[in-house]
Amino acid sequence: MNEEVAIRRRLHANPERGFCEYRTTCLVVARLRELGAEVALGADIMVPELRMGVPGDVDRAWREALDEGLDPQTMAALRHGTTGAVGILRGRRPGRVVAVRADIDALPLTEDGDDGHRPHRLGFASTRPGTMHACGHDGHTAIALGLARRLADRDFAGTVKLLFQPAEEGLRGGRAMAASGVLDDVDDLICIHLGLGAPTGTVHPRTHGALASVKLRATFTGVAAHAGLAPEHGRSALLAAAAGALAVHAVGQHGSAATRVNVGALDCPGASNVVPASATLDLEVRADDTAACDLLADRVTAALRGSAAAYGVTCALETTGHAPQVRCDADLADRIAAVAARVPAVTAVGGSLADRASDDAAWLLDRVRAHGGRGTYLVIGADQAGGHHQSTFDIDEDALGVGVDLLDRVVRTLGAAC
Amino acid sequence: MNEEVAIRRRLHANPERGFCEYRTTCLVVARLRELGAEVALGADIMVPELRMGVPGDVDRAWREALDEGLDPQTMAALRHGTTGAVGILRGRRPGRVVAVRADIDALPLTEDGDDGHRPHRLGFASTRPGTMHACGHDGHTAIALGLARRLADRDFAGTVKLLFQPAEEGLRGGRAMAASGVLDDVDDLICIHLGLGAPTGTVHPRTHGALASVKLRATFTGVAAHAGLAPEHGRSALLAAAAGALAVHAVGQHGSAATRVNVGALDCPGASNVVPASATLDLEVRADDTAACDLLADRVTAALRGSAAAYGVTCALETTGHAPQVRCDADLADRIAAVAARVPAVTAVGGSLADRASDDAAWLLDRVRAHGGRGTYLVIGADQAGGHHQSTFDIDEDALGVGVDLLDRVVRTLGAAC
Amino acid sequence: MNEEVAIRRRLHANPERGFCEYRTTCLVVARLRELGAEVALGADIMVPELRMGVPGDVDRAWREALDEGLDPQTMAALRHGTTGAVGILRGRRPGRVVAVRADIDALPLTEDGDDGHRPHRLGFASTRPGTMHACGHDGHTAIALGLARRLADRDFAGTVKLLFQPAEEGLRGGRAMAASGVLDDVDDLICIHLGLGAPTGTVHPRTHGALASVKLRATFTGVAAHAGLAPEHGRSALLAAAAGALAVHAVGQHGSAATRVNVGALDCPGASNVVPASATLDLEVRADDTAACDLLADRVTAALRGSAAAYGVTCALETTGHAPQVRCDADLADRIAAVAARVPAVTAVGGSLADRASDDAAWLLDRVRAHGGRGTYLVIGADQAGGHHQSTFDIDEDALGVGVDLLDRVVRTLGAAC
Amino acid sequence: MNEEVAIRRRLHANPERGFCEYRTTCLVVARLRELGAEVALGADIMVPELRMGVPGDVDRAWREALDEGLDPQTMAALRHGTTGAVGILRGRRPGRVVAVRADIDALPLTEDGDDGHRPHRLGFASTRPGTMHACGHDGHTAIALGLARRLADRDFAGTVKLLFQPAEEGLRGGRAMAASGVLDDVDDLICIHLGLGAPTGTVHPRTHGALASVKLRATFTGVAAHAGLAPEHGRSALLAAAAGALAVHAVGQHGSAATRVNVGALDCPGASNVVPASATLDLEVRADDTAACDLLADRVTAALRGSAAAYGVTCALETTGHAPQVRCDADLADRIAAVAARVPAVTAVGGSLADRASDDAAWLLDRVRAHGGRGTYLVIGADQAGGHHQSTFDIDEDALGVGVDLLDRVVRTLGAAC
Repeated sequence: MNEEVAIRRRLHANPERGFCEYRTTCLVVARLRELGAEVALGADIMVPELRMGVPGDVDRAWREALDEGLDPQTMAALRHGTTGAVGILRGRRPGRVVAVRADIDALPLTEDGDDGHRPHRLGFASTRPGTMHACGHDGHTAIALGLARRLADRDFAGTVKLLFQPAEEGLRGGRAMAASGVLDDVDDLICIHLGLGAPTGTVHPRTHGALASVKLRATFTGVAAHAGLAPEHGRSALLAAAAGALAVHAVGQHGSAATRVNVGALDCPGASNVVPASATLDLEVRADDTAACDLLADRVTAALRGSAAAYGVTCALETTGHAPQVRCDADLADRIAAVAARVPAVTAVGGSLADRASDDAAWLLDRVRAHGGRGTYLVIGADQAGGHHQSTFDIDEDALGVGVDLLDRVVRTLGAAC
Repeated sequence: MNEEVAIRRRLHANPERGFCEYRTTCLVVARLRELGAEVALGADIMVPELRMGVPGDVDRAWREALDEGLDPQTMAALRHGTTGAVGILRGRRPGRVVAVRADIDALPLTEDGDDGHRPHRLGFASTRPGTMHACGHDGHTAIALGLARRLADRDFAGTVKLLFQPAEEGLRGGRAMAASGVLDDVDDLICIHLGLGAPTGTVHPRTHGALASVKLRATFTGVAAHAGLAPEHGRSALLAAAAGALAVHAVGQHGSAATRVNVGALDCPGASNVVPASATLDLEVRADDTAACDLLADRVTAALRGSAAAYGVTCALETTGHAPQVRCDADLADRIAAVAARVPAVTAVGGSLADRASDDAAWLLDRVRAHGGRGTYLVIGADQAGGHHQSTFDIDEDALGVGVDLLDRVVRTLGAAC
Repeated sequence: MNEEVAIRRRLHANPERGFCEYRTTCLVVARLRELGAEVALGADIMVPELRMGVPGDVDRAWREALDEGLDPQTMAALRHGTTGAVGILRGRRPGRVVAVRADIDALPLTEDGDDGHRPHRLGFASTRPGTMHACGHDGHTAIALGLARRLADRDFAGTVKLLFQPAEEGLRGGRAMAASGVLDDVDDLICIHLGLGAPTGTVHPRTHGALASVKLRATFTGVAAHAGLAPEHGRSALLAAAAGALAVHAVGQHGSAATRVNVGALDCPGASNVVPASATLDLEVRADDTAACDLLADRVTAALRGSAAAYGVTCALETTGHAPQVRCDADLADRIAAVAARVPAVTAVGGSLADRASDDAAWLLDRVRAHGGRGTYLVIGADQAGGHHQSTFDIDEDALGVGVDLLDRVVRTLGAAC
Repeated sequence: MNEEVAIRRRLHANPERGFCEYRTTCLVVARLRELGAEVALGADIMVPELRMGVPGDVDRAWREALDEGLDPQTMAALRHGTTGAVGILRGRRPGRVVAVRADIDALPLTEDGDDGHRPHRLGFASTRPGTMHACGHDGHTAIALGLARRLADRDFAGTVKLLFQPAEEGLRGGRAMAASGVLDDVDDLICIHLGLGAPTGTVHPRTHGALASVKLRATFTGVAAHAGLAPEHGRSALLAAAAGALAVHAVGQHGSAATRVNVGALDCPGASNVVPASATLDLEVRADDTAACDLLADRVTAALRGSAAAYGVTCALETTGHAPQVRCDADLADRIAAVAARVPAVTAVGGSLADRASDDAAWLLDRVRAHGGRGTYLVIGADQAGGHHQSTFDIDEDALGVGVDLLDRVVRTLGAAC
């Protein structure tokens, strides 16, 4: 079992939710330091205030992680959920700055326990019920660390930055990392993703069709009252939330963009004889055009606020996730394709992959482009068991080696490009 | 056929909608003058700005009426729909001021044309399709004119004011008449109504349980757009109106008052392939408590405005009718009961009649009470064919004579009371 | 401290939810047996299938109670939540059968922990967080046991049945107890309640205005789908529940009955990027007329089913509580009033008390009436701290003695009546 | 002024709504017969039962047209709105059967009366207020008749069928014409359209991206009731329609097809104090995939029926228009492009034109394909004033000659193809 596989399995067995990736970050940091990389952490790579959807229990999780014996110095930098890390490897020769981004968080999902599920059968399934690496981020992290090992020789031109981003799921961490400025000297950014339907050995140097997305949490606050004795004193947060849920689904049509609206959860606890005073909606909008997505977010916001007002209720809105559309630079992708064609492990170099998902790598890509750099979203094919975000998800670990081989060549080539 | 019946039939054949009672008013004025009464008209008995729900075609109707040869001088006072009249008869002896209020308008209803319907069979059915005296206001007017005839002898103490109020249906005219001050010297006000389930010969000197009511018209204005090519440019007034209709029906419950909300009409014209930009709702709220009714109107207003905002649409609200709760003074009712017991035509004097209807006589009653006067809503029993507001409605015309006999005694008694 | 107070405090400290009153029932049974009463339990006093809203954890709660050392024989009869008991005391002389009903369950509420709250200050507050006697049922039980002690002398005519009914809160236990037939030989039934705004020393031998009520739980089941990739495969239970919530609030108006509809809770868990497949509504309807309440339940059921169908979702409905309107027999109330007037502890005998609450004593009263018996809902005044169903609720314990004194006289008088 | 322009102007001045194109059909028939064409009419070219959205006044319009002196024999064939015609011209030599389809109906729109509007300035604007040729069908008809004139020489191989289809607007006539079998011997079908943004002189031999569409009318029937006295007897058609309108807008999202839902009109007349018993919705769904469109129509139907059931109301649905997606055969389009390139009047031959509109030519095209034929939707560029379906719409009449020249060459070439 090679090192990439070993690391991937260790991460797979210990998945952590976004902004709670304390163990994962500590593992990454320790390995980077072993390999001689500089490491940046916490507020150096993240504007904490720009994180979105930070869970309420990041501090409790931090304390638990600390109690397990993690490195106190590293943990101090991660306090209050400023997880993630950036490793910097400087080549012996001058050259361009190339960055590779891996996301490190897991999903709120309980892993399949059937013998047919390989991680379970081989004993590296999640040890944390309710949390699972079901989108391949364990593999992304392992590839990036594998790349760090390869680059430890320093026999390359330029600088390589390895970004280990927290909280991609829910589009919560990318904006804060982009705003930190850690990418502001980067010429080429490669955001990697395993799978997405592409088989092991294939590579797609870019994607198209991704959806910009905004995630919102709406909290309605009304007035409780006895439903039999004095309903006129009540202002039902439930009715406001219900009307809001219907309204947001009715305002999303677009003539020239694909759009989506979904209210995914409504929580309104209470008893049947009390007018309910509090309700929460979790929802998202998406569009294959950033402007259409922003318009949609505005309309949805108005729909929720108006519905609240209609029932005499207040509505507080929190943006719990947000990403513009992932856009790739064709010239960078073409360079990668040219390199990939010469990597033995790569059996086929595909064109632009159509992908309807959302990824907050978009913030990082846009940041690099803002100062004249280039970026792309690189899909490293991997045979899959189970779909992404399903409890039976698993990836062909051979793809990890393909990824390391490919990126090794790519960053050396790009770093040396004039 | 006595005079009351003749007048009632003439009015029945020529019904007029609220604020368009030009012919009716001219008939009333001419008869009052024949009987020597002073007559007040137009702005002397009505604050035009306080009328509600004035139809858009009052001027056209006025022109048509004028062309039929109505008295130009009277018509000049009624211009722009300031219909109605007040007749004043002063007795030879000093005494109290007693007022009787009759409403004079008809309903937007087409009268039944079956031979089983007496007005049709006897040839005095409505000659105006779409307009009908289906609530007995023709009879109220005839009774009040019959009373004027009896009082033409001037052999009584005090002053009698006969109010012929326009536009009771929809609760549109009462507020404007009350505000004119025409009642500000009145000691006792008697608002009469025929029928309401009470048989001919019976009398109820007061009612209880009436509902305060507010009628509203909500006009939603959005933005039209091609539904296929650019729905994102549209703001659907239809969806706003639909959400508003659902919302207003959900906010009316009350623990200590009987309440009602009804959206009675929604007009949103258009084609299936265009996002509709304009929609109109007609609705009402009612409550057996004036404060509860006002609260309800406020909540309904918020529900409509909030629903409009939810869909990016504006909402203009017009109060098209309004009346507080009809309240009766028990001591005045007791006086009337005592008189009624001695009227031969009255076979039974009932107690307070439960009546869930609304009547803008409430404004007049409240005005009189505001300066220390008293008022009541007097029900003069009348056998009915068909229910109120139905195309088969008819009343037993014997009730007209009962009403004249009763009121003749009542106003003479009250006028002479110390 | 007299025995009633001691029992009440013991119960107050150990409140139990409906159908989980294992400790309470065992206490009642033990005391009844000490006093020589016959005791009927389980299926003899309850048709288990007719219970409503039985909690999912009745068996777990039973096991926990058993482990605390409760009497195994009694507990066997209560298995699966058939809690409650009936005590039968036969007088030495023949006579009528008189029943007294006390309800024994507590509310899902956490008791106030301030020093200003007497039960807390005196150390008998609830020892079970989340459960509290906040409606006086502890007092009802104590009074009924005090009455049993008084009647232990057997020096009375007829038979007295003491009904200790489970799960009154939520209207869940009354129907099942009525259907058992345990009341089928009862001539007079007296259902007691403390407080309801009446001060200590006063007694109201009957009430009026109570609301019939139906409680429903609606479970919507749709189809989950990825909201971005394939929303067309989803059928949102959330939207169906939202539309249903709005619809039920729009169908409740009634011209001649006071009605209420309330959706008190909506639980739809999920993530913002998944079309949610499951949602649950808890709701109730009420009316001051049993037929109007049944009509309302029918309309609400149709509104929920139709809304589900509109969104391609199924809707399963469970009746979680139900009671017709409490109706009292005036002649029985008059007899009680006559007795009460001679009880020294009773300072005032009031008339019929207006009460807008619901109580499933209605099933018991209707059952007795069905075979020719009589029944009433007797309010025993008690000064209160805090309103009913509030965490600060407490009652003046002097009222317990008043209740025992009064019922002692009443059942002896009624039992001996010819 | 050439003949095409003269005919177009005569039609423009006399626009007729779908299934009421009596004058237009008679003009077409007369001209075809002058030119020696065979003419098929009425049930020979139309299955009357398969027409959709036939207006209620087709018979009245027929009588009015007949009274203007139209040919009685032709009119007999058109009775009850079976308008439209097919002209058949047989060449002297054997060959393929080529069909050209022109639609002939106008829109419910009042034409602009400003001097800036050329048809008004030149005196050929619509003489029928509320009806206007605002989509160029007058030009389509004129081109097809111009082609008939060219082909009157019979000096060509094969047969040319000219289809004059009624009621394209609203997608109402195509299905009925396709089902008649009139196309069952056709090898190549060319459906023509002017404008669509393409300038005069350009030609697009095919289109893509068209939307399949279903138009529906939903009629809700409830129960009227007095909103104050007995709302419980009412079943509000308005609330059902409102809930239905919201529901249909919430069920249309699709992951792989562009979809649209629009409720364009809601008509619910009534008074504010009556629970409204009748309401009508006009709506449409569209999708760029026929299966997705059918799914959407099913979901919308369920949404309407379920909403009706939720409010105790019935819902009757009528399909008032329907068309699958317009699909074009590339090889036929390529043949046309090759011919077009040699037509002097054609200045540019474009590729496939993206067009998000719907056209019931789709039924005709699918019918031809079903037996092995080919078809396309040919756009003949025309400079426009005003957009399609706007009151200021006008087309550059030079495009008519371009169309005739092009089709003349095309049908001769196709007819002679082996």
